[in-house]
Amino acid sequence: MNILAIGAHPDDIELGCGGTLLKAARSGVNVFMYIVTRGSSAGSVVKRSNEIISSAKYIGAKAIWIDDYEDSAVYLTKELINSIEFFIRKTQADVIYTHPIKDNHHDHRAICEATVEAGRFTPNIFAYENPSTKNFAPVLYSDISDVILEKIRLIELYGSQKSKVFLSSNSVKAVAEHRAIQTRLDPKLTHVEAFEVLKMMMNTDHTLLPTRRLAEDLKPSRDIIEYIS
Amino acid sequence: MNILAIGAHPDDIELGCGGTLLKAARSGVNVFMYIVTRGSSAGSVVKRSNEIISSAKYIGAKAIWIDDYEDSAVYLTKELINSIEFFIRKTQADVIYTHPIKDNHHDHRAICEATVEAGRFTPNIFAYENPSTKNFAPVLYSDISDVILEKIRLIELYGSQKSKVFLSSNSVKAVAEHRAIQTRLDPKLTHVEAFEVLKMMMNTDHTLLPTRRLAEDLKPSRDIIEYIS
Amino acid sequence: MNILAIGAHPDDIELGCGGTLLKAARSGVNVFMYIVTRGSSAGSVVKRSNEIISSAKYIGAKAIWIDDYEDSAVYLTKELINSIEFFIRKTQADVIYTHPIKDNHHDHRAICEATVEAGRFTPNIFAYENPSTKNFAPVLYSDISDVILEKIRLIELYGSQKSKVFLSSNSVKAVAEHRAIQTRLDPKLTHVEAFEVLKMMMNTDHTLLPTRRLAEDLKPSRDIIEYIS
Amino acid sequence: MNILAIGAHPDDIELGCGGTLLKAARSGVNVFMYIVTRGSSAGSVVKRSNEIISSAKYIGAKAIWIDDYEDSAVYLTKELINSIEFFIRKTQADVIYTHPIKDNHHDHRAICEATVEAGRFTPNIFAYENPSTKNFAPVLYSDISDVILEKIRLIELYGSQKSKVFLSSNSVKAVAEHRAIQTRLDPKLTHVEAFEVLKMMMNTDHTLLPTRRLAEDLKPSRDIIEYIS
Amino acid sequence: MNILAIGAHPDDIELGCGGTLLKAARSGVNVFMYIVTRGSSAGSVVKRSNEIISSAKYIGAKAIWIDDYEDSAVYLTKELINSIEFFIRKTQADVIYTHPIKDNHHDHRAICEATVEAGRFTPNIFAYENPSTKNFAPVLYSDISDVILEKIRLIELYGSQKSKVFLSSNSVKAVAEHRAIQTRLDPKLTHVEAFEVLKMMMNTDHTLLPTRRLAEDLKPSRDIIEYIS
Amino acid sequence: MNILAIGAHPDDIELGCGGTLLKAARSGVNVFMYIVTRGSSAGSVVKRSNEIISSAKYIGAKAIWIDDYEDSAVYLTKELINSIEFFIRKTQADVIYTHPIKDNHHDHRAICEATVEAGRFTPNIFAYENPSTKNFAPVLYSDISDVILEKIRLIELYGSQKSKVFLSSNSVKAVAEHRAIQTRLDPKLTHVEAFEVLKMMMNTDHTLLPTRRLAEDLKPSRDIIEYIS
Repeated sequence: MNILAIGAHPDDIELGCGGTLLKAARSGVNVFMYIVTRGSSAGSVVKRSNEIISSAKYIGAKAIWIDDYEDSAVYLTKELINSIEFFIRKTQADVIYTHPIKDNHHDHRAICEATVEAGRFTPNIFAYENPSTKNFAPVLYSDISDVILEKIRLIELYGSQKSKVFLSSNSVKAVAEHRAIQTRLDPKLTHVEAFEVLKMMMNTDHTLLPTRRLAEDLKPSRDIIEYIS
Repeated sequence: MNILAIGAHPDDIELGCGGTLLKAARSGVNVFMYIVTRGSSAGSVVKRSNEIISSAKYIGAKAIWIDDYEDSAVYLTKELINSIEFFIRKTQADVIYTHPIKDNHHDHRAICEATVEAGRFTPNIFAYENPSTKNFAPVLYSDISDVILEKIRLIELYGSQKSKVFLSSNSVKAVAEHRAIQTRLDPKLTHVEAFEVLKMMMNTDHTLLPTRRLAEDLKPSRDIIEYIS
Repeated sequence: MNILAIGAHPDDIELGCGGTLLKAARSGVNVFMYIVTRGSSAGSVVKRSNEIISSAKYIGAKAIWIDDYEDSAVYLTKELINSIEFFIRKTQADVIYTHPIKDNHHDHRAICEATVEAGRFTPNIFAYENPSTKNFAPVLYSDISDVILEKIRLIELYGSQKSKVFLSSNSVKAVAEHRAIQTRLDPKLTHVEAFEVLKMMMNTDHTLLPTRRLAEDLKPSRDIIEYIS
Repeated sequence: MNILAIGAHPDDIELGCGGTLLKAARSGVNVFMYIVTRGSSAGSVVKRSNEIISSAKYIGAKAIWIDDYEDSAVYLTKELINSIEFFIRKTQADVIYTHPIKDNHHDHRAICEATVEAGRFTPNIFAYENPSTKNFAPVLYSDISDVILEKIRLIELYGSQKSKVFLSSNSVKAVAEHRAIQTRLDPKLTHVEAFEVLKMMMNTDHTLLPTRRLAEDLKPSRDIIEYIS
Repeated sequence: MNILAIGAHPDDIELGCGGTLLKAARSGVNVFMYIVTRGSSAGSVVKRSNEIISSAKYIGAKAIWIDDYEDSAVYLTKELINSIEFFIRKTQADVIYTHPIKDNHHDHRAICEATVEAGRFTPNIFAYENPSTKNFAPVLYSDISDVILEKIRLIELYGSQKSKVFLSSNSVKAVAEHRAIQTRLDPKLTHVEAFEVLKMMMNTDHTLLPTRRLAEDLKPSRDIIEYIS
Repeated sequence: MNILAIGAHPDDIELGCGGTLLKAARSGVNVFMYIVTRGSSAGSVVKRSNEIISSAKYIGAKAIWIDDYEDSAVYLTKELINSIEFFIRKTQADVIYTHPIKDNHHDHRAICEATVEAGRFTPNIFAYENPSTKNFAPVLYSDISDVILEKIRLIELYGSQKSKVFLSSNSVKAVAEHRAIQTRLDPKLTHVEAFEVLKMMMNTDHTLLPTRRLAEDLKPSRDIIEYIS
């Protein structure tokens, strides 16, 4: 199985689905990450790129790509859709994780809308939660109780951002505990990542349908920083 | 895996998820069906019960229970929640299929609300589509292209209802084709059943989390017609 | 009565309200069509333009205009609003058919939003359904049972697109049958086109209020392909 | 054309669509009114019934029926649906006016839900606005500029309720003016009644589809006060 | 100022707005609590009632009333509305705290709907969050950073319920931390209670409008356990 | 307390919250106004700017700034967010009044979205109603009964726009009366301004939390017309 996680800025993906990706990579799934901007609004691009690469290594991602869209100036354009579709095809993603549509940050909303269009032939698209997410209505839950400490360590790799209140270990734990309480499923589920389901296709045995093979006939439009594990 | 499908009236379950259940039963999943009323508003109770049992056999269900709530007079009550919870616990359901909340028939809405409360410890609950469903916003799709003819035959078992326009083979096919077109996933997906996700919990490998063992300490409140295969 | 149908790409209008337009034109209503792009993303512009003109003739439209916005790059701008308003005024449209706001294609959403602003003085605006439409919540239904075969022939005029699964005759019929079933009004209503009502103004006798005369003081901003019957 | 207007309490119908009914009756449409309770929460049943009958006469209604459900204790039941369906069939209503679903008064919400079920074979159902309505999202507008004074006189017939602030002539005018401003259609439209469209079916010529003939095989369940003009 | 907090079961109010009430009581506001059921579904009524009274003392409430509706069988009825309105009038509440409308527990939803009707003359009604709340869309935030430990102690007074996972100190903290992170207002805001605003009326100086004096002419319908501080 | 009112065009702020601002300024609150465009679509910029300044004087605003974005071409951009944030920081606004998200004018929607992002550290943001607002769902009400005549005079200062139907004294009164009727709070509340609450933070005593001190480190991007009282 191939998973492509898409985020606007460094650390968005980790906050939203870091625990789920970490567990998936360990179980043999191919995890890929695509970050749309270099996060220049919140610090040095070089430092932040290095942090992403450390994070990707810790997760066990097969590859990570950092694109060059302007931070805080990401809009829903034909070009953005094309950029995302390029990586969907390149990774032959069966499952995509992206931003949700109700989010206070317009970069996040643009990427959500672009992912839905770019992923029109991808069977499974889920949306994760960030501190800027509002009115989140999750229906899909993933147990990360056994990796919550590693998720916190993952976030701590973003040392350049540590003044941000929502990147503290307390904050990361609080969200995961709150979502676990809401599921009410099992006292042993102490930490959970929550998702909205944008689209999902299942097999007879209720597993996820893989993507059909997509032609790789697109090109990225800008300079990409690439790290392959 | 254990699936419990819940419906207000005979034929609701079949119209909503008959193809999916049929395929699941064949692949070895335990399928159970619970019908809340005997459908007396639309014909003889004896005839309709026999039709349900024929349908359950055709699907390959392990057991079917037909409760004795009054047709067109199902309301959200403590008793209804208890009745549904009894069968959730009895079947140790991992997945529940039920009515959606936006439906023009109040029996359907009451059962949806009662299922959500009764299933508060069940990890996976999906809502299926009926002709009375309105403003359905499906996100989960199940391929039934290979069993569409059997789904039609399944509906035809409800001979007493054949004057209903939405039970014709054309109607059954039209809905499944319309939903297949909407997924746009693959030209080979010609017929699809669509669902809303009320709740879903996934494992690390993106399969559905099974239920934890629930105590079977409830009692049904009324006379139940039971058929065990 | 004057009807203006607006669509992003060739065949959008026909899929959404082709049957309704066809019947209206035959009953003497003046039907006009305005297509915002030349559909270059999906084939030769010349071929597609010819297909639109054939389609317009088959419908019996008084005139058709094909604008020169870039396919898949239509955004909500002052210019787009102006372009649409130009044709609203030119046609003195009493009724407008346009895309709905919940649609996976951003060209469609932009045109919906622009139509609402451009049509602020138009009494009646309805939104039609396309394969890319999601969470459609129709309340207005139009019987096309007697022209379903002609609607299919209309779609078949778009020969250059025939590989698209949603343009097959089966697909066109499936949607129309599904919507007919949902109305549950009459077994004789076998095929229906469904609409959302964005705005509607009625006379005492429950007919639609015509537009008041609007000044024709705007200009189109780009090259227009015009075909007048 | 036959119109059936349904309201929970005396004066609900008049406030919501009194002007539209008045104009329709004058233009030759058959107007019928069905009031579900006798309004005992707000005064003498005899006095209130007489007020309704005066109002029906002023409107020019063909007949009015006042049912005997308990004021402020109307719930969505099989019986309520049956009661409403009885009058839908008796009047062979082509158009129904009823309460909207978003309303602070639970009597109103119950009647809206019951009307939708009872009217499953009726082609056109519209929801009107009352002072208790919240989050009203009207799309259908009816010009009552020429009868606003008569609408006020109509409300004044409910003399027993005149201490209610929302029954003052100012209040009635304010709502109608506010809705007229929102349409922005024409400076001559100074007073408007606004509606949500629950369902609507149109003919080729964009007029409303009449109902097909419905069997009159139901019975009312309670004592009915009947007034036939 | 008078605050009336309404909850379905013992501990609902404390979980939702315990910190806010505690701070309000200390600052001199009159806090009243009305619990609709005795919580018999989850333990001994005597024990639970004593726990409520301990909690009310700890909060500093002026009075607490425990009504006798059946746990898990609270429905929206004329009687329930009357019961709530009785206490609104008795306490001359300026502000009401109640359950939100989107909640998985039907007792909670019924009480929310009844409060809105019963409080039609009350200027300020806010809805708090419980573990059963779903799709909560808060807009109003209250800082409880300085009393989070006391809120936890408050919940611990409900010793009979301590097996419930959502009553652990961790859970209580997690929700409050998650809501604080979402406000993003100030790193010093570490714990927050969040609310939906159902209705609010403000003075010129942006303070809350107090209620106008309401007649106390209603009667409770059942046995009430009363504790006056 | 500092209030910043933001509007797309001259007269938007006055129509939406003119009465509330007028009363606030008189009670000693610092009122600031920021208008994003010069309103060139509807007349001479010089004339309209003078009208705004007259209006600001009448309200008693401390300062007013008129920016130079193109009328009817305001989009959600990084620059717009920065421009709004500049004035939020300059005025140290505790409360912001802005456009609502559901509005037919795209300039209004863009400003609403930009305000939410720019105001991420501001505790209180409310959205006001304009004639172009649709599906407004207000929960916050402000009594302007005692200044309704002054509000009308305020609107009349916009003499250059007086042909607009929604600027007539009747229209202004109608909206305020309609909103007063909806509150149903008190017969003495005859005129009310209504708001949606986008965000609100309250103190222990249920007053609004003031903003924490924000650094003034941004720059406006265009020419600003400034008027300081």
